[in-house]
Amino acid sequence: MNATEAAQLRHLLESQQLAALATIHKGEPAVSMVPYALLPDGEGLVIHISRLATHTADIERQPSVALLVMAPPDSAPLPQAVQRASLQGSALPCGAGAPAHQRARAAYLARFPQSEELFAFGDFSLFVIAVRAVRFVAGFGAARSILAAEYTAILSGPSLAPPPH
Amino acid sequence: MNATEAAQLRHLLESQQLAALATIHKGEPAVSMVPYALLPDGEGLVIHISRLATHTADIERQPSVALLVMAPPDSAPLPQAVQRASLQGSALPCGAGAPAHQRARAAYLARFPQSEELFAFGDFSLFVIAVRAVRFVAGFGAARSILAAEYTAILSGPSLAPPPH
Repeated sequence: MNATEAAQLRHLLESQQLAALATIHKGEPAVSMVPYALLPDGEGLVIHISRLATHTADIERQPSVALLVMAPPDSAPLPQAVQRASLQGSALPCGAGAPAHQRARAAYLARFPQSEELFAFGDFSLFVIAVRAVRFVAGFGAARSILAAEYTAILSGPSLAPPPH
Repeated sequence: MNATEAAQLRHLLESQQLAALATIHKGEPAVSMVPYALLPDGEGLVIHISRLATHTADIERQPSVALLVMAPPDSAPLPQAVQRASLQGSALPCGAGAPAHQRARAAYLARFPQSEELFAFGDFSLFVIAVRAVRFVAGFGAARSILAAEYTAILSGPSLAPPPH
C-alpha cells in the first residue's frame, strides 16, 4: 500500500464512527451495526456491546469477526467507488480486569462521550478487536490487502491531515 | 411493526444503494460492500457481483447471507440512533436462463444505469436474495423483527412519500 492509500485508509477509519459487524449466528452469517473507536497506535478497535444482543453471544462463541467501514454514501460520484475497508480480526472481552481496559474505555468515551452512562449497566461490555488483515478499496478497481503489521504501522503516530480522495 | 415503522423501513431500503454483505469465508465471517437494487413487490434484493470476488465464491458454497443497510451516518443526532435494517436471506444465481432474470436485470439497471457495461463481462453475475427475516432498528432502542410475509407486504405496491423520521 502506498503512502496515499495508507493515509486514505487511516482517514477513513478515523473519520467514521459506525461499522457493519459480521458474526456467525447458528452457522449462518449475521451482520449488525456497531459504533467503534480506535485504540491508539493501531492496537485495534474498541466496541461496547450489550449482552442482550445476539452479536455478543455470537462473538463469545466464535471470536472471529469481520468489520466493514464505509465512507458516506455521497462521498463518491458512483456508489461502487465509495471507499471502504473490510477488517478481519478477533474480538476479545476487555472487562474491568483486563490490562487494556482503561485505554479501551478512554478511547471509546473520547469518541462517544454520550455513552458514558452505558458503562454503568452491567449488560454492556467492552471488546477489543485485534486486526489480522484489512482489505481497503480506495475507489473503483483499486483494492489493496494488508496484514496486521502494516495496519499497525499505518495507524501509529499522530494523525495527518486528511489525504486527497 | 406499525405503519410508521413500515414506511421508515421501506424508505430506508429504497433510498440507499449500498449494503454490507456478510458471508462465511472458510468458516469465518466476512463482510464486503455491495450495491443492491430491489425487485418490485418485495420479491427480494438484486446484486451483481464478480466471480473474481471472494463473496461470490462464498455464496456459491453457502447461499445464506445477511445484508445490513444503514441510513447515512449524519442522518441521526447520535450514531447509535442511525436507522438500519439487517436482512437474512438466501442468495440464488439469477443468470440469463432464470425466470426472474429480465426483471432482476431491469431493477438493477434502473438503479445503476452506469453498470450496464458490466453485463457484457462474463465474470459478473446477478443473484437474487430472497428475504427470510428482517430486523429493523428505527432509532435508539427501537428494534422490530419481521418475517418474509410481512417484508413482502411492506415492500409491495407503489412507494409512498418519505415517512417522518
